[in-house]
Amino acid sequence: MRIMNKYRCAIMEVETKLKVLNTEFSLQYDRNPFESIKSRLKSPVSIIEKLQRKVPDLTEDTIAENIEEHLFDVAGLRVVCAFQEDIYWLADLLIQQDDIRLIRTKDYIKNPKPNGYRSLHLILEVPVFLEEGKTPVKVEVQFRTIAMDFWASVDHKLRYKKDLPNEAEIVAKLRQCADVIAGLDCEMQEIRSMIEEDREV
Amino acid sequence: MRIMNKYRCAIMEVETKLKVLNTEFSLQYDRNPFESIKSRLKSPVSIIEKLQRKVPDLTEDTIAENIEEHLFDVAGLRVVCAFQEDIYWLADLLIQQDDIRLIRTKDYIKNPKPNGYRSLHLILEVPVFLEEGKTPVKVEVQFRTIAMDFWASVDHKLRYKKDLPNEAEIVAKLRQCADVIAGLDCEMQEIRSMIEEDREV
Amino acid sequence: MRIMNKYRCAIMEVETKLKVLNTEFSLQYDRNPFESIKSRLKSPVSIIEKLQRKVPDLTEDTIAENIEEHLFDVAGLRVVCAFQEDIYWLADLLIQQDDIRLIRTKDYIKNPKPNGYRSLHLILEVPVFLEEGKTPVKVEVQFRTIAMDFWASVDHKLRYKKDLPNEAEIVAKLRQCADVIAGLDCEMQEIRSMIEEDREV
Amino acid sequence: MRIMNKYRCAIMEVETKLKVLNTEFSLQYDRNPFESIKSRLKSPVSIIEKLQRKVPDLTEDTIAENIEEHLFDVAGLRVVCAFQEDIYWLADLLIQQDDIRLIRTKDYIKNPKPNGYRSLHLILEVPVFLEEGKTPVKVEVQFRTIAMDFWASVDHKLRYKKDLPNEAEIVAKLRQCADVIAGLDCEMQEIRSMIEEDREV
Repeated sequence: MRIMNKYRCAIMEVETKLKVLNTEFSLQYDRNPFESIKSRLKSPVSIIEKLQRKVPDLTEDTIAENIEEHLFDVAGLRVVCAFQEDIYWLADLLIQQDDIRLIRTKDYIKNPKPNGYRSLHLILEVPVFLEEGKTPVKVEVQFRTIAMDFWASVDHKLRYKKDLPNEAEIVAKLRQCADVIAGLDCEMQEIRSMIEEDREV
Repeated sequence: MRIMNKYRCAIMEVETKLKVLNTEFSLQYDRNPFESIKSRLKSPVSIIEKLQRKVPDLTEDTIAENIEEHLFDVAGLRVVCAFQEDIYWLADLLIQQDDIRLIRTKDYIKNPKPNGYRSLHLILEVPVFLEEGKTPVKVEVQFRTIAMDFWASVDHKLRYKKDLPNEAEIVAKLRQCADVIAGLDCEMQEIRSMIEEDREV
Repeated sequence: MRIMNKYRCAIMEVETKLKVLNTEFSLQYDRNPFESIKSRLKSPVSIIEKLQRKVPDLTEDTIAENIEEHLFDVAGLRVVCAFQEDIYWLADLLIQQDDIRLIRTKDYIKNPKPNGYRSLHLILEVPVFLEEGKTPVKVEVQFRTIAMDFWASVDHKLRYKKDLPNEAEIVAKLRQCADVIAGLDCEMQEIRSMIEEDREV
Repeated sequence: MRIMNKYRCAIMEVETKLKVLNTEFSLQYDRNPFESIKSRLKSPVSIIEKLQRKVPDLTEDTIAENIEEHLFDVAGLRVVCAFQEDIYWLADLLIQQDDIRLIRTKDYIKNPKPNGYRSLHLILEVPVFLEEGKTPVKVEVQFRTIAMDFWASVDHKLRYKKDLPNEAEIVAKLRQCADVIAGLDCEMQEIRSMIEEDREV
């Protein structure tokens, strides 16, 4: 699918924008706002599956336009920050750029999911310059702290296991860990603020 | 110097634009228009030296504005292509993008330097999104074939040697190799065209 | 200092050994034993400073031999694992390799430092093949969980601040967070074991 | 196929050995003996195809042992050097390492193939430390100059084209370019030697 390339390029554009902010920030404040960026493209198979659920009368001719209209997470970036404060700082600077359009925000940090999942999700639209000209492309950017990311990776393992005899117990334990992690993130943020309180962010 | 950061970010932006074109092209035509990209930032020492030659009454307060006005090669990218044809193809696509402004072109492929040096040099201006907003930054992009790049690396070694007894002989030999390389690039280009002539570029 | 190169190469060798284990493990068990590896070389300045404290009558001629005899952390690798279990699994496999010699183990996970610091430190000796032949070189490898690494990075910031009015309070808070993190690591390890208990490690 | 992993790891080991030599050399002589390393794993499909040609009575149980006995190019590394001299220097240093065993040498630089192909091919055996212990693995290492590599990439395109009307002409032109390239490599080597003749390699 040639359409995938557009999303691959959109990921590269947003990644560069984030690295530019990281470079600038680390120079000014001597620390990196994010630790790592991971990117992923939804596989063609998952795209078709998800689309068929949303558009029952999907035909081959309408795939491309339907992807653009209905799927916002074909291109995904995950930005892992050490501190919660930096998540909002980065997200704000990204949204303010005049070639970026914010489509949607879901703040699962302020409002965690019932299972304990926490992250800030943005859907952005960025211009990509291809051979045939400039075209806007949607990208989902997820922001998390290191601790939220660790939690999510274990939670993710659970999703792929079927018929675990003790699933209820595992879910409860994970829920509990999510609370500990939320508390820990606040504590560590506070400690950093105490250490660096002479600095204005 | 905080100003260096602006140039570092401009390099990242242009590099992403080139990689986007590479990704798209390799998908469509099953080959990469460029082999490698190298980037470099002029060192603060060379910046000051070059500026003092251009602006005799330079003061500390006027450094930043003078860099922007007089130096176009603080940020540099070198794009190495297998084939000469791809050089012009890439350069054109870059210039056509509506957020890029072409400041100057020097085509040392069509008009080689007396010593045999061949490359296409563009000075471009690209927008960089920093914390304080969008700002245009100049970048020099040099396009070369693999063979031109190899030649230039040997020629470069010569520049840093003083008082070589046989310098005239070396210069003459290098000049001769430059001609062989120019011929070879044309031949190889022709062979590729013959192999792929069913394909439209 | 030419001697630094030996250590740079030793880092590359150990890093490759760890990546080989990661590749193999991720194929067999579908997960990565480590998340990231960071490496660092002690700066020549710190090497001399540390050496002068250990060897009062240091002369220029004896620097090289004294580095080898007294400094074990010129070359450093930090291996960050998601789970504590994988730390010991990786460390054991490394030590068993017949071209590696274990010089020393300090287990700050079983016996944390008073401030709360936790990590497993190994001093290893590995062969490096240089132009003049094979030579054994010492490398310090630190193993940590993601959570320990996060804690250590904040603790590290504290070390470079002088005269913080509320230092005692910060130290106490950090100590407390270290305990929370140790508990969290155990909980998460247990959850993973429950999810994957059908698997033999 | 679990067996592929062994070869992937062997590639990493040889690549590290080459990078160690590169690091050391660039420190001593201020230039890099190689420009780039590319690696590739033969695909399972090509492995089976090649094996079936060599072993007519191949069964599923005997695949693993037959791969080891008959295929020497499952794991491949291509080392691209600027100068021909560095090819032999690197190859010699690799062969001399006491944990490497040289299985075979084919020197297509001294004895080019009829079509003009030039490269130095070594089959080496290196130890890989896997979870179950140390095991020797075969790797093919191809050494080329930049110019030979460029030539080979165009020649490679030709191999995948069928029924080109002007194939004989293309082959003849390529053959001619191979000679020009061989001459050019010698000339450039000579120029470098003249520039650096005060230096001992």
